[in-house]
Amino acid sequence: MERVRLGVGMERVISSEIALHVGERAFVRGWLQARRRLGGITFLVVRDGWGTVQAVMEQATEEVSALLPESVIEIEGVIRAEAQAPDGVELAAEIVRVVTPVTEPLPVALGKKEIKAALPTILDHAVVVNRHPSRRAVFKLEAAVMAGFRTTLNAQGFTEIQSPKIVASATESGANVFQLNYFGVPAYLAQSPQFYKQIMVGVFERVYEVAPVFRAEPHDTTRHVNSYVSLDVEFGFIENHFTVMKMVREVLAGIFATLTERCAPELALLEANLPTVPATIPHIHFHEAQEWIYQTHGVDVRHEPDLSPQDEKWLGEMAQKKYGSDFLFVVGYPMVKRPFYTHPNPQNPTYSNSFDLLFRGTELITGGQRLHLYSDYQAALQKANLPEAPFETYLEAFRYGMPPHGGFAIGLERLLMQLLGLGNVRLATLFPRDLTRLTP
Amino acid sequence: MERVRLGVGMERVISSEIALHVGERAFVRGWLQARRRLGGITFLVVRDGWGTVQAVMEQATEEVSALLPESVIEIEGVIRAEAQAPDGVELAAEIVRVVTPVTEPLPVALGKKEIKAALPTILDHAVVVNRHPSRRAVFKLEAAVMAGFRTTLNAQGFTEIQSPKIVASATESGANVFQLNYFGVPAYLAQSPQFYKQIMVGVFERVYEVAPVFRAEPHDTTRHVNSYVSLDVEFGFIENHFTVMKMVREVLAGIFATLTERCAPELALLEANLPTVPATIPHIHFHEAQEWIYQTHGVDVRHEPDLSPQDEKWLGEMAQKKYGSDFLFVVGYPMVKRPFYTHPNPQNPTYSNSFDLLFRGTELITGGQRLHLYSDYQAALQKANLPEAPFETYLEAFRYGMPPHGGFAIGLERLLMQLLGLGNVRLATLFPRDLTRLTP
Repeated sequence: MERVRLGVGMERVISSEIALHVGERAFVRGWLQARRRLGGITFLVVRDGWGTVQAVMEQATEEVSALLPESVIEIEGVIRAEAQAPDGVELAAEIVRVVTPVTEPLPVALGKKEIKAALPTILDHAVVVNRHPSRRAVFKLEAAVMAGFRTTLNAQGFTEIQSPKIVASATESGANVFQLNYFGVPAYLAQSPQFYKQIMVGVFERVYEVAPVFRAEPHDTTRHVNSYVSLDVEFGFIENHFTVMKMVREVLAGIFATLTERCAPELALLEANLPTVPATIPHIHFHEAQEWIYQTHGVDVRHEPDLSPQDEKWLGEMAQKKYGSDFLFVVGYPMVKRPFYTHPNPQNPTYSNSFDLLFRGTELITGGQRLHLYSDYQAALQKANLPEAPFETYLEAFRYGMPPHGGFAIGLERLLMQLLGLGNVRLATLFPRDLTRLTP
Repeated sequence: MERVRLGVGMERVISSEIALHVGERAFVRGWLQARRRLGGITFLVVRDGWGTVQAVMEQATEEVSALLPESVIEIEGVIRAEAQAPDGVELAAEIVRVVTPVTEPLPVALGKKEIKAALPTILDHAVVVNRHPSRRAVFKLEAAVMAGFRTTLNAQGFTEIQSPKIVASATESGANVFQLNYFGVPAYLAQSPQFYKQIMVGVFERVYEVAPVFRAEPHDTTRHVNSYVSLDVEFGFIENHFTVMKMVREVLAGIFATLTERCAPELALLEANLPTVPATIPHIHFHEAQEWIYQTHGVDVRHEPDLSPQDEKWLGEMAQKKYGSDFLFVVGYPMVKRPFYTHPNPQNPTYSNSFDLLFRGTELITGGQRLHLYSDYQAALQKANLPEAPFETYLEAFRYGMPPHGGFAIGLERLLMQLLGLGNVRLATLFPRDLTRLTP
């Protein structure tokens, strides 16, 4: 038998390389995703880590005919071109070996193109449902997003960090945090690496982190889970938030380029409509955005401190129409709605040097310039009625020299939800954690 | 002025590229790491995100002479070759602009080659001490280890995952876990992604994760912290633990190749002695290892269920002497000391299909083959006196078809500690968490 050595433990042909081995005798391994009988011939769809292979048996044995879905099997035979087969290749099966039999019917059928189950069932049985090609594709895309994020930032001179997830105080913006018992002392799960990534600008100047964050917010919406993967960026020597916005543009372009390059089959399967990232993403000032909404849609939101989902939707439509862009920066949100470390606009300190990035009319990324002077932090904490003591080690960075700096964060699952139009962020999460869900 | 555009926000020459710009007028930015006066001339060592630049001023202004260390500055001048300067290049400084002045003396001096401070002081002030070149080098190496780990596994067809860190039960091996309040319900911090990475073998066949793990073990040793970064690998269709050991070899070779390629200055600064990874890492059976210790060192450990640090040291010396290898696998640890999901040796079920990798006489990696049959899990849980209920979702993966599989985990900080001979794992951790330390 021809042996293909792709790497450690790869004495077999894998699905994604099968077309390279037409005419060869080989074996494939994987899970029995579907079995059909057509005119006495048995078709077996075998799924491995990279895709599926169609195997054809003229005379299926009783054992093969009795195999339950998801049985782990190995099929030996000859790979041949077959115009009717998916991807034009199939395996003429001769021997089927059962590696691990399955003896129970699946809780959710995986052999059809679509998963026919309600969301709670899908989530309850995520352990097996995540094997479905449409679920796998989502998580393959997430892996590619992380890779594209890192590659782009490495090329821009960034260093990857891993900051602590257990912290001493429930600091940042007074948001809800999970409390835990740390050897008899109360401690908290980090709701963001914000303080640490800023501190690390003092060390490496440009840093990023890909790590879980924890939010104890009692929301039960389609857009919230209580732990998600945050793609965090922070860097020094910026001019203002516009430098950060340029970096956002580079990172997004890098991410979507990586998806195109690495995930064509997954994007096709999910019928994903990838955006083009303009060379310069258009931007509008918060204040002008409200004015435009009033002028165009007749709704007076001009005294609101934030944009509503409806406002964001209108602005997304405007960006599409006026600039042909899926993306729009809204800059200069009022200081009152931004955390204490936000840098104000020096010309008009009511507004901040911050931004949100709308993607197809929904907020995807938040970022901006941060304060960098120790005295500014002291004043900001005082203004926010916050004591200095819990921030002591954070402030140490600013006492010993920090440059103007800023950054942003992308929620990995939120990005995928919006890109794929999933309707619920839980469907972009491998094993979601929400108000009532702690398993699987 | 010549402008060098390296990327977003890079209208300057950075330290690592300065030698490419000899003869040009340019500016550098960074932190004032050291200032010396020699025969009326002032030398300023400026540190940026990538290294240091020496700037020379014939006539330092009073402001420059008064600058405290770590002040953030921008220096404009002409880059010139100078044999006496570090790396043969210096900046003839003309204008020094103070970006952020520092007004207090540092808690720990950063301007010398070595940090002169006790460990608690270093850890208390990690926010600034991590800026020291010797500390930065450690964390640059860690970033490169993560990159090398991912690159090697991507090339072997692995998919990156991010598994939940909050879990419903204190499962795995009865080890100590941190408890938290999850919306009124007790929950726990994941002490390892073990169950999830196995589950994901059912989805992607080959998976890895780089993420924090949490251990509530009340140890106060030089080798333990209560949260660290775990580099986890798991993959299917293995023959046995030897397939996993081959993958360990590939991953280590990939990591050290990446370090060599990306981190020459850091390795030189830390005087790191990189190991060569043999084409095949030698191995010895647990049982033979004990026999060899008895025969060679006259200590009878043949009835111990595990190896002691002294045993590991002796075995490390043997590996060096006999094979010229910094690495040695010990295989076949007794089942009694391994977690319930460990696969026994089919020929002799007292011993397991597991291994430890010793690196220079200390355990660095643990791994092995896992059980893959549902019935084997039921039997193993019963034998361990564990109820099935808390493992319900984990077991679902095995009910619906899992191939023979295995994997391993590397502690990122432990690897660096051993590679660099740091003496304390806290020195390989950005902001360590231990029995008494929750800040910075």
